[in-house]
Amino acid sequence: MHTINVVLWGLGAMGSGIYKVLLERSGAEVAGAIGRNPAKLGQDLGQTLGLQPGGIIISGDVRSVLEKVGGGVVIHSTGSFFKEIHHELMQAVRAGFNVITIAEEMAEPWEADRELAKELNEEAQKYGVTVLGTGINPGFVLDALAICLTGACCSVRKIEAERINDLSPFGSTVMATQGVGITPEEFKTGVDKGTIVGHIGFKQSISLIAQALNWELDQIVEEKEPIISSTYRETPYVKVEPGLVAGCHHRAYGYKNGEAVITLKHPQQVCPEAEAIETGDYIRIEGDPPVNLSIKPEIPGGQGTMAMAVNMIPVVAAAAPGLKTLLDLPFPSCWSRFEQAY
Amino acid sequence: MHTINVVLWGLGAMGSGIYKVLLERSGAEVAGAIGRNPAKLGQDLGQTLGLQPGGIIISGDVRSVLEKVGGGVVIHSTGSFFKEIHHELMQAVRAGFNVITIAEEMAEPWEADRELAKELNEEAQKYGVTVLGTGINPGFVLDALAICLTGACCSVRKIEAERINDLSPFGSTVMATQGVGITPEEFKTGVDKGTIVGHIGFKQSISLIAQALNWELDQIVEEKEPIISSTYRETPYVKVEPGLVAGCHHRAYGYKNGEAVITLKHPQQVCPEAEAIETGDYIRIEGDPPVNLSIKPEIPGGQGTMAMAVNMIPVVAAAAPGLKTLLDLPFPSCWSRFEQAY
Repeated sequence: MHTINVVLWGLGAMGSGIYKVLLERSGAEVAGAIGRNPAKLGQDLGQTLGLQPGGIIISGDVRSVLEKVGGGVVIHSTGSFFKEIHHELMQAVRAGFNVITIAEEMAEPWEADRELAKELNEEAQKYGVTVLGTGINPGFVLDALAICLTGACCSVRKIEAERINDLSPFGSTVMATQGVGITPEEFKTGVDKGTIVGHIGFKQSISLIAQALNWELDQIVEEKEPIISSTYRETPYVKVEPGLVAGCHHRAYGYKNGEAVITLKHPQQVCPEAEAIETGDYIRIEGDPPVNLSIKPEIPGGQGTMAMAVNMIPVVAAAAPGLKTLLDLPFPSCWSRFEQAY
Repeated sequence: MHTINVVLWGLGAMGSGIYKVLLERSGAEVAGAIGRNPAKLGQDLGQTLGLQPGGIIISGDVRSVLEKVGGGVVIHSTGSFFKEIHHELMQAVRAGFNVITIAEEMAEPWEADRELAKELNEEAQKYGVTVLGTGINPGFVLDALAICLTGACCSVRKIEAERINDLSPFGSTVMATQGVGITPEEFKTGVDKGTIVGHIGFKQSISLIAQALNWELDQIVEEKEPIISSTYRETPYVKVEPGLVAGCHHRAYGYKNGEAVITLKHPQQVCPEAEAIETGDYIRIEGDPPVNLSIKPEIPGGQGTMAMAVNMIPVVAAAAPGLKTLLDLPFPSCWSRFEQAY
């Protein structure tokens, strides 16, 4: 059995976590690591994570890492937006690597930027490699799982899915981009200015669902509203007085013939338990039969995203070349080892 | 756009229901119907179902229906066991048809009969067609859905899934094969004699999960126990006095290194509400992260099976030739129409 070489491109919480997950698997192993924190370049990746040294030295020299490893799968986790990471994906493809990226927009890249997607797809086909965007959301809870469920439906009229989670573990960057701890007026200004972004990937999730059902949508509309706390809430990173913002209730609607047929809701806040809000993932399909699914508590975002990226390795390695979405590929499972398909 | 021709082979509740579902879809349409009820041969299928005549005449002449339609997808629903239907599947394949069968054993045909599976696989490859077994269970609730969920897990230690349903709508055949309305002693005798079969497909579901996770199992063990009623329960088909059997609690365990790592439970009974039992589909994954899923009420078996068969049409039509399982193919969705892939 031949092991698939994996290059981690991006060594933040996700890239580092994926290193740890892959230590427990066989069939694929980390063969290179590309970082950008100057303090860590030249160090052993395992050691920087408090583990035994694993012989993988963090490098900032993309070209030489890709050349040295020579092929396999790049797991890419440096950004959220297609425009920002396009050149990195192209570089990995041209070095002959399959690419799994957790960039939210790459869950449905044509929705994000049709021209860049076309270019990347052509390049992937030319080099005989597969590129896929995945993650827990977009990539699973508010799209793949809902799509899977419709497989058990004779007809579907509407889909509503909601992911209620807890932002308490997150640091100051997330507090700022979700608007936690500020006044409702400041929240409104932040939304208008684009500094409060809420969730990234609603367009991708709605587009994937619509494609799977062959629904032609008129438009996709997003809304962000402050979740105003009526209690005092506190985390190591933020204090929220009553009347201030505990989080962002971000919603998106896919309209068909003027009706919202896909509704996705993602209220994210610190300390939801302070107001007896149960976290969870919920999917309700109005159809024949109707389906009413709950996952309590919600699948945690960090572990879920690392898992989807790792579990997609054998699927992507075996797939036809090109830029793909989850609709094109068999669903991943938590493999403990695998026979390589190519 | 070219429409896929569908031949319905088997016109019981499932085959007839699939006819109705396909009336509401575009992209695939019923072009032939093979039945075996002498009273209905020569009649218009739509009319026998109380609908407008659709021009599809029920025939008992398999060869001439397959020859006349000339290709497409056979949806096969004449039996549960591979041995009993093998010759029908071979005949469809040799006539150049892709086949979707709801026979429970075909969800994992190698588990049912390795020799027959090998033969059918070779024949399907020779004729360039795809054969797939699907349905709600096996095929979705206790296998595909659990497998999908593991995609969001960094590691999985154990899987437990349970499907609690209501047998009240079913007639006397199901009452007999589930042992409803008899004494616990009669139930035991029925299990020993093989007349009380409970659920068909546990081996398939457990085998599919194990394959998806790359777990090598030591053995698969099944147990059937009577659900003894402590209340009076009544349906149009059966009366259950307290102390008699209200249904069959069928369980199956997949053992790895001596430990039950996959546990599937399917208690089926009439009037579960009589003892405040909530029907539903439940999946619990012990892993990182743990996942705790509920679907309430359960996805109804009949509609779910018809949906899976219909929704698999474009997936099977586009798949590589051979005998497949759900692990080989992209997951189905409830398409409203589709562009044909071949």
